[in-house]
Amino acid sequence: MAAPIDFYFDFASPYGYIASQTIDELAQRHGRSVNWHAIVLDANFQSLERIRIPTSVMRSDYIRRDVERLAAFSGVDYKTPSSLGLHTEMAARLFHWFNDRDPEQGRCFARAAYRAYFVEDRNIAQLETLQDLCAAQKMDAAELQHLVNDSANRARLKAEIDLAESRGVFGSPFFIVEGERFWGNDRLPQLERWLAQGPY
Amino acid sequence: MAAPIDFYFDFASPYGYIASQTIDELAQRHGRSVNWHAIVLDANFQSLERIRIPTSVMRSDYIRRDVERLAAFSGVDYKTPSSLGLHTEMAARLFHWFNDRDPEQGRCFARAAYRAYFVEDRNIAQLETLQDLCAAQKMDAAELQHLVNDSANRARLKAEIDLAESRGVFGSPFFIVEGERFWGNDRLPQLERWLAQGPY
Repeated sequence: MAAPIDFYFDFASPYGYIASQTIDELAQRHGRSVNWHAIVLDANFQSLERIRIPTSVMRSDYIRRDVERLAAFSGVDYKTPSSLGLHTEMAARLFHWFNDRDPEQGRCFARAAYRAYFVEDRNIAQLETLQDLCAAQKMDAAELQHLVNDSANRARLKAEIDLAESRGVFGSPFFIVEGERFWGNDRLPQLERWLAQGPY
Repeated sequence: MAAPIDFYFDFASPYGYIASQTIDELAQRHGRSVNWHAIVLDANFQSLERIRIPTSVMRSDYIRRDVERLAAFSGVDYKTPSSLGLHTEMAARLFHWFNDRDPEQGRCFARAAYRAYFVEDRNIAQLETLQDLCAAQKMDAAELQHLVNDSANRARLKAEIDLAESRGVFGSPFFIVEGERFWGNDRLPQLERWLAQGPY
């Protein structure tokens, strides 16, 4: 069985959203599975090589236009949200809660959260929005309220982030397969060649 | 006559080198010409949106491997040089001297300088290397020595950099066509679609 592709993403990252629309299909073409990993690339993130993408870059007019163009180029729905750079820790924690129980449900939650943020312009940092997203996965408000304050759930995300740091992740989307790192949607053609022909 | 593509590059940028191998052919496929512009993206560069790519990124293991992989993927000769981040101001000044007289000679000089750095591992910050490169363009050592100290030649590069700053350039390679900005080799498929189908 060929190694799966590890797909790291931040719910605040529009590029991660675009990747979430294409990565499973790409992997399937080459008989690979994908493990999804939500992370939070905030000021606490300590990448192995101390690489940090400055916030000034992500908030620039250039990036705003680049994301719109990439979405159009990739045939992906996209609407620039009114607030970029939302705090997405709670969404990431909920993702892992669903994903650890059932990866298919994890994906459903992730796709819905991304769509809420980058198509419907909803604020996924707000509890009401998360409540709606969780209700769609059949989690009730009381259980969500419990998870918000649950230290085990918080530690689960922290461990995921520590692991991402130690594997040299520093951006979103980020892909690792067979130890090879690929950063960004624009490296997907190179990842695809790797899957098709092996290392180069 | 369709607008030309402005191609900005730094002689210290391996990604700029890779772009220099493909941009003219891409433009030709769509009946466009390319204006080449050498710039120096050092600490003095003040991009319009205050975007700065941290040196830590460019010196990371990730980028070293990424460039090698991109060169292999693009079918371009490449050897990681022993010194990354050389001071390339003099090479850029010489480029403009040749390019202002004859764009074809400018390209010849640029290609030779890039090849010296990223294939032959020669130090293009050193006067001896530049002397060889200039001799190949029939510039003698005395003329080169004059240009090294020539304030008009220094001002020529400074004006080019000021213009790049004001146009929102912040990386290498960087392409502008019809006011639309494209940063990086990985945006060339999007640039190509722009040329083929117009704005999107």
